Amino acid sequence: MLEINRPEVLAEVTDAFERYETALINNDVEVLDELFWNSKHTLRYGVSENLYGYAAIAAFRASRPSQGLQRELVNTTLTTYGHDFATANTEFLRNGGAVHGRQSQTWMRTSEGWRVVAAHVSLMPKA
Amino acid sequence: MLEINRPEVLAEVTDAFERYETALINNDVEVLDELFWNSKHTLRYGVSENLYGYAAIAAFRASRPSQGLQRELVNTTLTTYGHDFATANTEFLRNGGAVHGRQSQTWMRTSEGWRVVAAHVSLMPKA
Repeated sequence: MLEINRPEVLAEVTDAFERYETALINNDVEVLDELFWNSKHTLRYGVSENLYGYAAIAAFRASRPSQGLQRELVNTTLTTYGHDFATANTEFLRNGGAVHGRQSQTWMRTSEGWRVVAAHVSLMPKA
Repeated sequence: MLEINRPEVLAEVTDAFERYETALINNDVEVLDELFWNSKHTLRYGVSENLYGYAAIAAFRASRPSQGLQRELVNTTLTTYGHDFATANTEFLRNGGAVHGRQSQTWMRTSEGWRVVAAHVSLMPKA
């Protein structure tokens, strides 16, 4: 079976994940676009939209409000499988915990570096 | 780079995905448990719960109401990456479309067969 959390692979994915997070909270669209796999197969389920293919995701990024993106990550869980695959899951809090969400990403190593091939972001229902 | 959607791999993952769906709508807990990777690394973000580790997921399955699980899948997208990895994403509708959700799974080939290593299920916000 694939080796889980090989240290050098986990280090690479951690770097990619942190780069994504920094880009997200700063609305650095160029880096966000870079880190998604440029493929028709890439998809992203967002809080209130379902985006199929790299072009749809990039169009969404370009039109997204750039305010209120700051957040705190909790229970972040990165796992690597073999040399070329990883999952990155985290809960996040906004506005002092008034908003509680979850972000799931599946990452793949490509010839250009690690890229998100599928993502899902959602908010926990209000109690 | 990893080969995308190798036909024999995609056929295997399609079988596993369909087996999971049948088990889900019939609340076949034994098969649902079987198809999740038995690991502390496995996680599942559900509609209103965040479950870390195989044991927490199995405990949730055991206590889950078994009614109202029927659903229709739309825009189902299975993608395989190389020989050992896959993502399965689908939207689903319940109650004639009154409920609209999304289900994301990351699958890995193990020595015992294909297993879900991470999952995320959420509902679209009401319009």
